[in-house]
Amino acid sequence: MKFSPLVQELIESFKCLPGVGGKTAQRMAFHLLERNRQGGTKLATTLNKAMENIGHCQKCRNFTEQTLCEICESPRRQQSKLLCVVENPADVIAIEQTGEFQGRYFILMGHLSPIDGIGPDDLGLDLLENELNQGQVKEVILATNPTVEGEATAHFIAEMAHSMDVNISRIAHGVPVGGELEYVDGNTLSHALTGRKNYQV
Amino acid sequence: MKFSPLVQELIESFKCLPGVGGKTAQRMAFHLLERNRQGGTKLATTLNKAMENIGHCQKCRNFTEQTLCEICESPRRQQSKLLCVVENPADVIAIEQTGEFQGRYFILMGHLSPIDGIGPDDLGLDLLENELNQGQVKEVILATNPTVEGEATAHFIAEMAHSMDVNISRIAHGVPVGGELEYVDGNTLSHALTGRKNYQV
Ligand SMILES: [Zn+2]
Ligand SMILES: [Zn+2]
Repeated sequence: MKFSPLVQELIESFKCLPGVGGKTAQRMAFHLLERNRQGGTKLATTLNKAMENIGHCQKCRNFTEQTLCEICESPRRQQSKLLCVVENPADVIAIEQTGEFQGRYFILMGHLSPIDGIGPDDLGLDLLENELNQGQVKEVILATNPTVEGEATAHFIAEMAHSMDVNISRIAHGVPVGGELEYVDGNTLSHALTGRKNYQV
Repeated sequence: MKFSPLVQELIESFKCLPGVGGKTAQRMAFHLLERNRQGGTKLATTLNKAMENIGHCQKCRNFTEQTLCEICESPRRQQSKLLCVVENPADVIAIEQTGEFQGRYFILMGHLSPIDGIGPDDLGLDLLENELNQGQVKEVILATNPTVEGEATAHFIAEMAHSMDVNISRIAHGVPVGGELEYVDGNTLSHALTGRKNYQV
């Protein structure tokens, strides 16, 4: 005995979402059926439209339904000659929210991971190399995550850009602002010590 | 700065799912866009079909795309004259998996909850009363959850069925089979003691 065929099919379909197993899929199906059919129909329509129309920006690889994303289309951003390399679209949002950065981005959509078979081409590094070769970028800021994979990816890109006429920088790692030393992990603390700067009086 | 309009719309749409907030919605959107467009499109199609075609069984209220569900359509189930009242469709599956029960079900799709404005009519109790009045049921088994709301709902139905010519029973509560006493909560244990039975030698 199972649910009716269409209910069963709906539950199965939800399992394509990350972190959603049988129980959660069931809860989602019943919730929409029982309490929010309108929301379910809206999700179906948007999902369909999104899967069909969202592609990658031809310059930065971010998700967009246009050929170029809003940031890449801005002449002001282009003129800054700064290019910030991040792993994910969400990183772009995080950096944009600081209001500190006025350059462009390059989104890897992941990091190098030989175990998962993710190599330079999967991260669009050929596209990045191309971009750097065109001489319109004067500094590449490596803002990949401070993880083993993120560091390895940053290192790989730095090596690649080394021979080109471009500055390469890495975002600073250290004690989070507002954090208390005793709660900061050892690795971060050792980064903070190694990366210490002269105190300006 | 936000994501592109369609990406943003997709993220928002996922928030109609229970337990899905901003971060999870974002992860779902990116996962489908990056790794599983086929799954996303399939989900959209099924969701659309499901929201449009799945209704409630006219006898037991379970979800089905037919007028009557498979169980209610079975003459053998009807002949048993047993009706098991449960809160959710998932409870039906759980009971069916035991293979112990050959009767029909009535699914409340919730429990009485005055705070949330859920009263007898929202649980289809008029439909249940109707069914019991037809004299085709000889025993109603109350299998609502052993929670405060579930007990209150069982009590309400028992009162309603009291005047009719029908037996009313409640599923047994006690120590789960295979469980160890020391890990059983006090409430269950006190139920198990109160509901003790003569030991058959
Ligand atoms: Zn772009
Ligand atoms: Zn039915």
